[in-house]
Amino acid sequence: MSSSRFQLSLPDWVQPYVASLPERIPEASERMQVAIALARHNLDNGTGGPFGAAIFEQNSGRLAAVGMNLVVSEHCSLAHAEMVAITMAQSALKTYDLGRAPGAPYELVSSTEPCAMCMGAIPWSGVQSLVCGANDADARAVGFDEGEKPSDWQSGYRRRGIAVECGVCRADAARVLRDYAASGGEIYNSGA
Amino acid sequence: MSSSRFQLSLPDWVQPYVASLPERIPEASERMQVAIALARHNLDNGTGGPFGAAIFEQNSGRLAAVGMNLVVSEHCSLAHAEMVAITMAQSALKTYDLGRAPGAPYELVSSTEPCAMCMGAIPWSGVQSLVCGANDADARAVGFDEGEKPSDWQSGYRRRGIAVECGVCRADAARVLRDYAASGGEIYNSGA
Repeated sequence: MSSSRFQLSLPDWVQPYVASLPERIPEASERMQVAIALARHNLDNGTGGPFGAAIFEQNSGRLAAVGMNLVVSEHCSLAHAEMVAITMAQSALKTYDLGRAPGAPYELVSSTEPCAMCMGAIPWSGVQSLVCGANDADARAVGFDEGEKPSDWQSGYRRRGIAVECGVCRADAARVLRDYAASGGEIYNSGA
Repeated sequence: MSSSRFQLSLPDWVQPYVASLPERIPEASERMQVAIALARHNLDNGTGGPFGAAIFEQNSGRLAAVGMNLVVSEHCSLAHAEMVAITMAQSALKTYDLGRAPGAPYELVSSTEPCAMCMGAIPWSGVQSLVCGANDADARAVGFDEGEKPSDWQSGYRRRGIAVECGVCRADAARVLRDYAASGGEIYNSGA
């Protein structure tokens, strides 16, 4: 039994990309273009799967954290874009609950609808809004497994006070998924 | 936007505890006692919530990794016991897929049934067997939120080739939950 420490690092291209963004990004569609750009850069740089996510202060539009799929490069099946963004936001703000952090409420913007794991994780993070681009069917169409989610998961979110908006810039988001598959990118489902 | 790195560290008490275990732990109930002991030590040392998990080589009984709830101490809402154990096992074996790693098949033993997030995460990890102690009702009874899981999640696991056994040493596992609640331990649901 050897590991007692795990480190997750964002790829080198992330910092310059983030530095190029405006200080405030007010509109949902502009925020989604950030998530999609993160997915696209991840594909173009060969650093992971075609998924990107970003967390914003909902009211000010300030970016709090970004994430992208790092499953293969970081040897971590949990490193989906949404999970990475949540981890980095909480780490920066030194809290496990973004709902009570300075700058709250926070909004998670993801280039694709969450899989079963991320669907379960988002309510624990304290974000109060979720915006998605491509949907489950788009992800499944290129071979990604989204897992078993309750059919009424969006109602469950709303009961918890988490707003959900899906299909924002869906065509752009789905194009990244198709481009990844066409490029021969690894569809990395587990061997269970 | 400041964080581009996240580090997760196990508490100092873990290494000596793990070093005290026998080299092989063949039986499910003995493996569960390890997961329960991790939960108990986490409570006694004030390092997190009353949840423990361990991953074993299913056939040899060798311990591959351990995890415990580190949500509060690591400022990470995703750091549930099962997630920490999966992360440490994959990190040690340098793979995102335990199903194809040396020593497979792997078994995840958790002191409490997985919440919605962990339920979604386990199939991505490549473990081929899940053993649980306390159940959802035991966790909810002391105030923990397990999230929305499909009612037939265990059938979904079996369709994926993941064996599930619940209720192993349930009374011992549930006692740790009640002791945590009685000690005034934080029930750290998010503020979403």
